[in-house]
Amino acid sequence: MSQAATVAVDWGTSSFRLWLLDSAGGILGERRSDQGMMAAAKPGFANVLQSHLEALGVAADCPVVICGMAGARQGWVEAGYVDTPARLTDILDRAVPVPLQSRDIRILPGIAQRDATAPDVMRGEETQLLGAVGLNSVGDAVVCMPGTHSKWVTMRGGMVEGFGTFMTGELFSIVVRDTILTHAVAGAEAAEDIDAFKRAVEVAHDQPALASSLLFQVRSGQLLFGGSAAAAREAISGTLIGLEIAGGLARQLTEPVTLIASGRLARLYLIAFEALSIPVRSIDADEAVRRGLTMAASAIWKR
Amino acid sequence: MSQAATVAVDWGTSSFRLWLLDSAGGILGERRSDQGMMAAAKPGFANVLQSHLEALGVAADCPVVICGMAGARQGWVEAGYVDTPARLTDILDRAVPVPLQSRDIRILPGIAQRDATAPDVMRGEETQLLGAVGLNSVGDAVVCMPGTHSKWVTMRGGMVEGFGTFMTGELFSIVVRDTILTHAVAGAEAAEDIDAFKRAVEVAHDQPALASSLLFQVRSGQLLFGGSAAAAREAISGTLIGLEIAGGLARQLTEPVTLIASGRLARLYLIAFEALSIPVRSIDADEAVRRGLTMAASAIWKR
Repeated sequence: MSQAATVAVDWGTSSFRLWLLDSAGGILGERRSDQGMMAAAKPGFANVLQSHLEALGVAADCPVVICGMAGARQGWVEAGYVDTPARLTDILDRAVPVPLQSRDIRILPGIAQRDATAPDVMRGEETQLLGAVGLNSVGDAVVCMPGTHSKWVTMRGGMVEGFGTFMTGELFSIVVRDTILTHAVAGAEAAEDIDAFKRAVEVAHDQPALASSLLFQVRSGQLLFGGSAAAAREAISGTLIGLEIAGGLARQLTEPVTLIASGRLARLYLIAFEALSIPVRSIDADEAVRRGLTMAASAIWKR
Repeated sequence: MSQAATVAVDWGTSSFRLWLLDSAGGILGERRSDQGMMAAAKPGFANVLQSHLEALGVAADCPVVICGMAGARQGWVEAGYVDTPARLTDILDRAVPVPLQSRDIRILPGIAQRDATAPDVMRGEETQLLGAVGLNSVGDAVVCMPGTHSKWVTMRGGMVEGFGTFMTGELFSIVVRDTILTHAVAGAEAAEDIDAFKRAVEVAHDQPALASSLLFQVRSGQLLFGGSAAAAREAISGTLIGLEIAGGLARQLTEPVTLIASGRLARLYLIAFEALSIPVRSIDADEAVRRGLTMAASAIWKR
């Protein structure tokens, strides 16, 4: 094995991803599991991390940098927040060491928007953002980071001016699983209906106030006119994503949107932005968080 | 017992309500249970109805008129739909007899909006509407019927011109029960926070596109600034109701809104409309459906 420099961990609420990186950020090894914050609490964060390090044969003195919910109050060690307007370098300066460990382990803080009229928090996305825009960014950007809790960030002069969290992914899960729409989408897992998705994005984006009515129409439409479970599923997804984009862009003027996403989610949001004729530049989320963690490691351990 | 003329039943998805009425619509007896369409399928609709009729000692020749989901395809006997634009008297003309019963039992049809761009259906609310506006209405009105699936109806010249269903109540249930907001509202059942509710109604009504972000702020706000579970619960409720009112009024000009609701829901919506300075006249939903069923009985059996 080539010279490992750092272990980088993105420790989310429900997922755990670990990369063994060389000093240039090259990937020497990788581990993924569903031992997110919620699952890791019982066996203990130290034990979960150690088992993955052992599986990759990581040296005992190799340091570990972590971002995400492991730094939440209910996580491993609370890593606090950098407040908006936030310089991304402040995240590196405020990394919190995990005490009483045989190796050097640091957890990066999140970002908080302590605005009583729009309170918001992020943990993990700040590191993606760092990887995506870099340490020396001075530009403006509107950044969309889709997921269970999608983040829309306004960057001004390289700083995180403000952001908002949209519960798109979580709402999709519960609407599909546990409402009158559940029957409408039964058996749709494998199929896709891009046209139904695009139509729903457009309508919800144009009439966001009708969102919860557009959702019900998915069922009524199937009842009155027929239609596949796949079309129903994509219409629900499109409605919630169209609503999110309308909200995310509500107070933004800067274009294009910077999309930080991976896999199916990246593809869906690209289709949505295209349907709305909103220009977008796309950055892979996995790469971004790995790059951000590598930057953090370089800054913390001066390599 | 005075002379019973009709049994009136509002048979919803999850609730069953029965009234024994005299010829003037006066209440001689009442039964309520959770044997809605879903629960009644197994024991059988006829058996459920019969047990309640026996409990009230109803005569064997007393006829029964039913509205609601008992007339759905997956209900007792399918009662079809009257299509929009719909005359409310058409509902009475299209009542469907339940076959092979020892007494005369009729189920009222629902209303369908067979518009491919806004398909929608109602079952039960058409009878509330009939009771609220009467058989001879020729006026215009915007009617709000809140619930698990709130209905907003546009009446023109006494006809149901069109309507939309908002999943407000169902979304509230699942968001409170099964998301990241569940902890934020834990233990809030008994308490209330009217100010938090009003603020949330106003903000969501003004910025409906931000709805799913406003929901997340309920959690972030509690994390950053504290705040009670009751305030969190009312903020979620207010956000979803504010979103609904924005959507319900999006294409409407007629004021005041006619609110058909009962109990706590009536009170909440009255507070919401007041917070938004939207004039409203309020009609009790229980009374409306009973009056509608009485009108139906009179028309069907010419009493």
